[in-house]
Amino acid sequence: MFHPLYVDRVLDPGFTNWKRHFADASLRVHRAHLTMLEEQKLLPQGVAARLHGAIDTLASSFVPPAKIPDGIEDLYFLFERELGALVGVETAGYLHLARSRNDMDTTIFRLVLKERLLAFLGRVLNLATVLRRGSDRTELFLLATHGQPANVSTLGHYLSAFLAELLEDVEDLFAGLETVDRSTLGACAITTTGFNLNRQRVAELLGLGGLVANSYQAIATGHWLTRPATAARQLALDLTRLVADMGPKASAEVGILRFPDALVQSSSIMPQKRNPVILEHVRIQAGLAAGTLGSVADLFRNLAFQDVNEVADAPVTVLFEALETLTSAVDLLTVTIEALEVDENKVRSIARDLGVTTTELADSLVREKGISFREAHGVVHAFVKAGNDKAALRSGFAALGHGPLDRSDAWIDDTLSAERFVAVRKVYGGPAPEGMAPVLELLDGQLGQFRRRLERGGGR
Amino acid sequence: MFHPLYVDRVLDPGFTNWKRHFADASLRVHRAHLTMLEEQKLLPQGVAARLHGAIDTLASSFVPPAKIPDGIEDLYFLFERELGALVGVETAGYLHLARSRNDMDTTIFRLVLKERLLAFLGRVLNLATVLRRGSDRTELFLLATHGQPANVSTLGHYLSAFLAELLEDVEDLFAGLETVDRSTLGACAITTTGFNLNRQRVAELLGLGGLVANSYQAIATGHWLTRPATAARQLALDLTRLVADMGPKASAEVGILRFPDALVQSSSIMPQKRNPVILEHVRIQAGLAAGTLGSVADLFRNLAFQDVNEVADAPVTVLFEALETLTSAVDLLTVTIEALEVDENKVRSIARDLGVTTTELADSLVREKGISFREAHGVVHAFVKAGNDKAALRSGFAALGHGPLDRSDAWIDDTLSAERFVAVRKVYGGPAPEGMAPVLELLDGQLGQFRRRLERGGGR
Amino acid sequence: MFHPLYVDRVLDPGFTNWKRHFADASLRVHRAHLTMLEEQKLLPQGVAARLHGAIDTLASSFVPPAKIPDGIEDLYFLFERELGALVGVETAGYLHLARSRNDMDTTIFRLVLKERLLAFLGRVLNLATVLRRGSDRTELFLLATHGQPANVSTLGHYLSAFLAELLEDVEDLFAGLETVDRSTLGACAITTTGFNLNRQRVAELLGLGGLVANSYQAIATGHWLTRPATAARQLALDLTRLVADMGPKASAEVGILRFPDALVQSSSIMPQKRNPVILEHVRIQAGLAAGTLGSVADLFRNLAFQDVNEVADAPVTVLFEALETLTSAVDLLTVTIEALEVDENKVRSIARDLGVTTTELADSLVREKGISFREAHGVVHAFVKAGNDKAALRSGFAALGHGPLDRSDAWIDDTLSAERFVAVRKVYGGPAPEGMAPVLELLDGQLGQFRRRLERGGGR
Amino acid sequence: MFHPLYVDRVLDPGFTNWKRHFADASLRVHRAHLTMLEEQKLLPQGVAARLHGAIDTLASSFVPPAKIPDGIEDLYFLFERELGALVGVETAGYLHLARSRNDMDTTIFRLVLKERLLAFLGRVLNLATVLRRGSDRTELFLLATHGQPANVSTLGHYLSAFLAELLEDVEDLFAGLETVDRSTLGACAITTTGFNLNRQRVAELLGLGGLVANSYQAIATGHWLTRPATAARQLALDLTRLVADMGPKASAEVGILRFPDALVQSSSIMPQKRNPVILEHVRIQAGLAAGTLGSVADLFRNLAFQDVNEVADAPVTVLFEALETLTSAVDLLTVTIEALEVDENKVRSIARDLGVTTTELADSLVREKGISFREAHGVVHAFVKAGNDKAALRSGFAALGHGPLDRSDAWIDDTLSAERFVAVRKVYGGPAPEGMAPVLELLDGQLGQFRRRLERGGGR
Repeated sequence: MFHPLYVDRVLDPGFTNWKRHFADASLRVHRAHLTMLEEQKLLPQGVAARLHGAIDTLASSFVPPAKIPDGIEDLYFLFERELGALVGVETAGYLHLARSRNDMDTTIFRLVLKERLLAFLGRVLNLATVLRRGSDRTELFLLATHGQPANVSTLGHYLSAFLAELLEDVEDLFAGLETVDRSTLGACAITTTGFNLNRQRVAELLGLGGLVANSYQAIATGHWLTRPATAARQLALDLTRLVADMGPKASAEVGILRFPDALVQSSSIMPQKRNPVILEHVRIQAGLAAGTLGSVADLFRNLAFQDVNEVADAPVTVLFEALETLTSAVDLLTVTIEALEVDENKVRSIARDLGVTTTELADSLVREKGISFREAHGVVHAFVKAGNDKAALRSGFAALGHGPLDRSDAWIDDTLSAERFVAVRKVYGGPAPEGMAPVLELLDGQLGQFRRRLERGGGR
Repeated sequence: MFHPLYVDRVLDPGFTNWKRHFADASLRVHRAHLTMLEEQKLLPQGVAARLHGAIDTLASSFVPPAKIPDGIEDLYFLFERELGALVGVETAGYLHLARSRNDMDTTIFRLVLKERLLAFLGRVLNLATVLRRGSDRTELFLLATHGQPANVSTLGHYLSAFLAELLEDVEDLFAGLETVDRSTLGACAITTTGFNLNRQRVAELLGLGGLVANSYQAIATGHWLTRPATAARQLALDLTRLVADMGPKASAEVGILRFPDALVQSSSIMPQKRNPVILEHVRIQAGLAAGTLGSVADLFRNLAFQDVNEVADAPVTVLFEALETLTSAVDLLTVTIEALEVDENKVRSIARDLGVTTTELADSLVREKGISFREAHGVVHAFVKAGNDKAALRSGFAALGHGPLDRSDAWIDDTLSAERFVAVRKVYGGPAPEGMAPVLELLDGQLGQFRRRLERGGGR
Repeated sequence: MFHPLYVDRVLDPGFTNWKRHFADASLRVHRAHLTMLEEQKLLPQGVAARLHGAIDTLASSFVPPAKIPDGIEDLYFLFERELGALVGVETAGYLHLARSRNDMDTTIFRLVLKERLLAFLGRVLNLATVLRRGSDRTELFLLATHGQPANVSTLGHYLSAFLAELLEDVEDLFAGLETVDRSTLGACAITTTGFNLNRQRVAELLGLGGLVANSYQAIATGHWLTRPATAARQLALDLTRLVADMGPKASAEVGILRFPDALVQSSSIMPQKRNPVILEHVRIQAGLAAGTLGSVADLFRNLAFQDVNEVADAPVTVLFEALETLTSAVDLLTVTIEALEVDENKVRSIARDLGVTTTELADSLVREKGISFREAHGVVHAFVKAGNDKAALRSGFAALGHGPLDRSDAWIDDTLSAERFVAVRKVYGGPAPEGMAPVLELLDGQLGQFRRRLERGGGR
Repeated sequence: MFHPLYVDRVLDPGFTNWKRHFADASLRVHRAHLTMLEEQKLLPQGVAARLHGAIDTLASSFVPPAKIPDGIEDLYFLFERELGALVGVETAGYLHLARSRNDMDTTIFRLVLKERLLAFLGRVLNLATVLRRGSDRTELFLLATHGQPANVSTLGHYLSAFLAELLEDVEDLFAGLETVDRSTLGACAITTTGFNLNRQRVAELLGLGGLVANSYQAIATGHWLTRPATAARQLALDLTRLVADMGPKASAEVGILRFPDALVQSSSIMPQKRNPVILEHVRIQAGLAAGTLGSVADLFRNLAFQDVNEVADAPVTVLFEALETLTSAVDLLTVTIEALEVDENKVRSIARDLGVTTTELADSLVREKGISFREAHGVVHAFVKAGNDKAALRSGFAALGHGPLDRSDAWIDDTLSAERFVAVRKVYGGPAPEGMAPVLELLDGQLGQFRRRLERGGGR
């Protein structure tokens, strides 16, 4: 008999995890293993059929108890006992021939984790789709460097930048999924067995993309947990970057981003407050998920490269919970992006008041008047210092020795307009339509590829 | 004038980092940008030639001072000043046409980081090569699960398991390298420019694999730092797993692994001690590197998705240092693996004394006597409990009702031998030569592919 | 109306957290605030009495719905609505006079966190008590350095070392509790109010140890979360150290530690296995808790020092869950320590076979024969190299030139005995009873002090 | 002979660390140990005097080589060899009597770490002093909640809030220092010795505050590294919170904080930019330090609770480097705080335009007109929605049924003034002078106590 505390803190929580998450996948593994044993002629006549029948019976009728029964270690031993009750202990025992809980469990975990990752990827690609739609938006937008207003751009340019970032994470998630998508069955405890198994056949029956070849690695590796966890963590931290950037843009003082009332909370004490705390909740949920995902990877530090319970149900379940939390953050960000409103007048007024477009004035002087970049930069700097005084610009230009500035005030104003700032930035990757076209094409290509991969169940 | 403390704690350390790590790559970037500007006909006649000449002159003769000069922000402004002294300020200014320190710096960092990653990958593939050689070793070895002796295997089976693990990290490192291997030039501050640049041409001139398309992402992204850092961190933690597993195997009590004297330290007070502390130093160096690599990624939490100094020289330099520390851990592990000695007699005696091979006895009873796995397990368990008493085995077997156990004592002994335990494990991925063959073939394929990719400079 | 996803992913989970964890403390806060408002004569005649009555009514009869009602932000607004239904909206409104959800919520969180920390400390002190009992055990034990057997000691010496370590964590936990044990009420949103409040009185009514004085800090600080989280994380990592040390000692090969069957699991495939996986579960639960506790602290990186939702119910609830997980690890370790068995014969045989006590032979030669430490070390080293050959010892000693070694073989054997190794180590802090006495006295003092502090509710 | 790579990657870097950081403290430890040995009469006549003389000679004349000599493990063995050359090997050997490198090294590390922590605390208290000066500043300031402008306050109220936060970290740093400030000498390898040592006397001679009593804990514990590292990490993360809060306040759009030109960088391409990147550098240096400090603590996860090289020179040196980086961040923040300028007109205009003070209007209606808080909140909310239309306020008030609002327009304007918002907040901890007085008194008390503790060398 196990110590009651051990039952209460280890065996019973494990039993609960197994019932909740792993029961269905267990049946799939039993059936696949059994089919292979039969095909390999490793069972006495009739045993496979009887076992298949009994598994079907238990699948449809067996309801495990709320609490783990006395003297039972886990759901599998309980299942085997029930099986024994149906077909006799001896026959039931054949199901576990050439198998260990080691290879059985890790394959079950991989099957379920694969499903969870595919579901998570579905939500991420939904966010990506919304970002892709947003990438077509051409409203003027103001982008910052070092927390200071820097350049006029478009909302689409901004959102497509983040979309590209996100799709890099998606690539890592699919790479992580590939590690998950492998069968370990046949590894048995750690060194396979003397029975003539067909490991590839089991993987095929389970719809898994491949095998972990080396049987010791199959059991000892934690990469199927850490690789997707690490990729998801990166995505989580990337979410915090976007909301950290949007926050000040959505402040009442700056106000170039707005959210509809349905996403905003008020204050119980300050009548004027409109708090877009949805951004905070994305940050918090992403931040908590990042922490948990990191903590799964950290479990493996200084951990013997051998079979350990870190690759068992408790950490796997924690990973599931972190993916749920992160899914929530992804979904919240999705509706936030969908609801985003830009105040273009605010963009124009800040751009004008803070001289954001003066870079373009300097560049235009270089292009149209043939002066050097440093000269132009100097003249425009003086213009800015003088409070956008055109006279200062003209006298500064004249002092360069290239003659007077033969351009009208209207030319200067037009050159400084937010619209023109964007329109001339046609370089590959810039905010003008000509610059955005190849970016959008690339993103469409990647997004299409990822969507198809998801539909295929993750395979390349 | 900058505040003296700001000079001392920010500008001067940055100046030092730039001189040490980034000076050569800066010249490459200047030349590539200049060549493109000329090809795109963005420069007045003769300017490109004069600037190329001046850059050559400075490349061969300019030695920056030990301390950052007063009023200078960084090495680039000093370089531009020197350039101005050679060709005039106006002409010198043309070098920075349609460029910002933002796109210039991040491309320089990427060029250097690419080199460092390739060098690091070279050392990792060297370890992989040594592990691959070790994978051919067929000495008997004892593998544990849950810290307890579990199965007999071979050293090659063990080392090839870790090699497979390592190569998964190598795949991630190459994926990280792909993110690094992109030019950001032409992004300028964040939105490109109104000048007609050819960004692809600059990437080509720099030997980079591609572009970061979206100009805002080009400057704001930290993935070129975090993706390789994260991959390297995983590798570092994997090193700690191997040494954590080898440690107890190398203890005086267990003693199945031995290291030559050249890798062992003595005690200043305990005459009997032989401490294989090289394992500890791998662990510490890998552990410290893991910490630093993680801390680079953590910098980006809650950090506005915009141009920030986290993608500047200080974090990049810290990443270089972490790669150096990790390289040291990799190299130490390499010599450790090369020097590894196995005490097969110790393996055999522990296996015998602790009943490690009794699994095989149970399996043989199933295979040869047609009893079920659970029956066999029960009989053998009783045999073990009775101190490997063959009479207990025979009586237990007889009690099953399948008749007496018609096998000799010699058969029992042979079935329990360590050699046979390995020899029958021919399943795909098992330790017998038949099981190892496809594993080694896979590893050879991957290793060859990675070596060729390294020789190609990282490209697929 | 809030966006349905916002309700589903933010408001409703918050509502659930509040109902589950914070409902009782909310009532305490309402009553204390109300009492103070009345004492300060800030309420119209009769309002306080009516509100107290209505709060009592709701406390005994109001059952909030399973799901958050439409248009309601949180449990407090729902409560206020119910209050309004009982006493009229106008009167109900007085309860929130000179208060904000900011100061209300953080005080509620602190009240509940204080309870949880006290409960956690209770479990930790229970472990400490068991370790203290174990510190009296004088069975011979073998301690390692660098993974190699190093010195003979006693189980009590070993366990008391870890107890001392644990009590340092307890000190940090109490320090963290002190930060928690402060009222923020009266801070209102962030700058207090124009109403004449008595903040000290509210703290007193709530049984809190003090105030956060500065009203902005009161709301912006996360220290009440991070300080206890950090202290608990250190404790969690310390647990992983102890089990990492006990693991190899409990391996079948070494075998100086044993666990009763009630704490050991078998293998489904390897008949000989006895896995003390309880150690692993302590490690995993402590490791997961450490990760989560660290992730709470990490939320605050680059987070504006202002009122944010990181100090709201979601992270607080996560902290509670981490404390529960860690409590489980603490309890599992407690029963493990209670059940620990030492195999002294194994200790003696390893000590003898591996020359563990030869340090003492060298020391005895120094003390009794007046040779230098380095001479003694050299002679004994040769003795060890020769396989504990007494002739080698004698000839080595003779070669030193201090005459022959006038000691019998029995003297040598006795000097090398495990018992004597311990008995002579009487130095302050050593394993002999004389060395242990002051250690135990110190521990008893600290443990008594902490127990009394716990009984007092954490106050110094 | 050691393996050349082992020399290059382990022994020689260790030798360098020791020469650079630990040489002086080593001499202190040799002298203290020797004095105690002599006082305890454990040495032959004359040995102590000869050894003291030789140590003095080496202290003044011995210059260790650049590279570690062949066959030497560390600086100590080299030192002992030199000592042997001066006084003979036999006499030299007495210095190491009843001592191990274990207890010697950890005490040396503690001595040096104590100095570093005291120096670091000196810089932190310097920042605290500057914050304390800033706490007297009464310029109007605008504080945010959830990234939105929330309340008017004063700069002093804001800075004193952060000062209080910082002093909580200082308390933890002193607690960490207390763990460092203990001698481990006499613990020898791990179990003390049979020689009659006086451990307290050695601690006294070294000026350390106490002993680590249990000899096994003395060597195995990592708390002397992790406790100060954890406290410093918390401080580092707190720095990131302050700069994250100041950043948007210093943006060109908001502009309530300004920095002098000496702390601001320009753009090489955008003429209008003024980047207060000093805030970023505080964030980056603090962030990198936080990462490294965390990584020191993480080294101990799953690490056997025994003597390991994690408590040796490499991690200790990394901790020193992290403290240096963090010192730089502290100093940069100090000059930033010293140079801070507030634009009170900007504060007033934002407060007015965004209705920041309307809370006070609601409160005044409650206080002066006796309506309930909810009523007042409703009326003022309508006023805000109507664009601060006084007619809306009056009609809304009238609708409440308490008669007309008998207050002049001037009263309304005055009630909404930023100055009055602050002046009425006299509650304990609020921004009015009456609220600040007890806060400043508390801070002065703590700061004075910490300064005296620092002067005393850290002791309570």
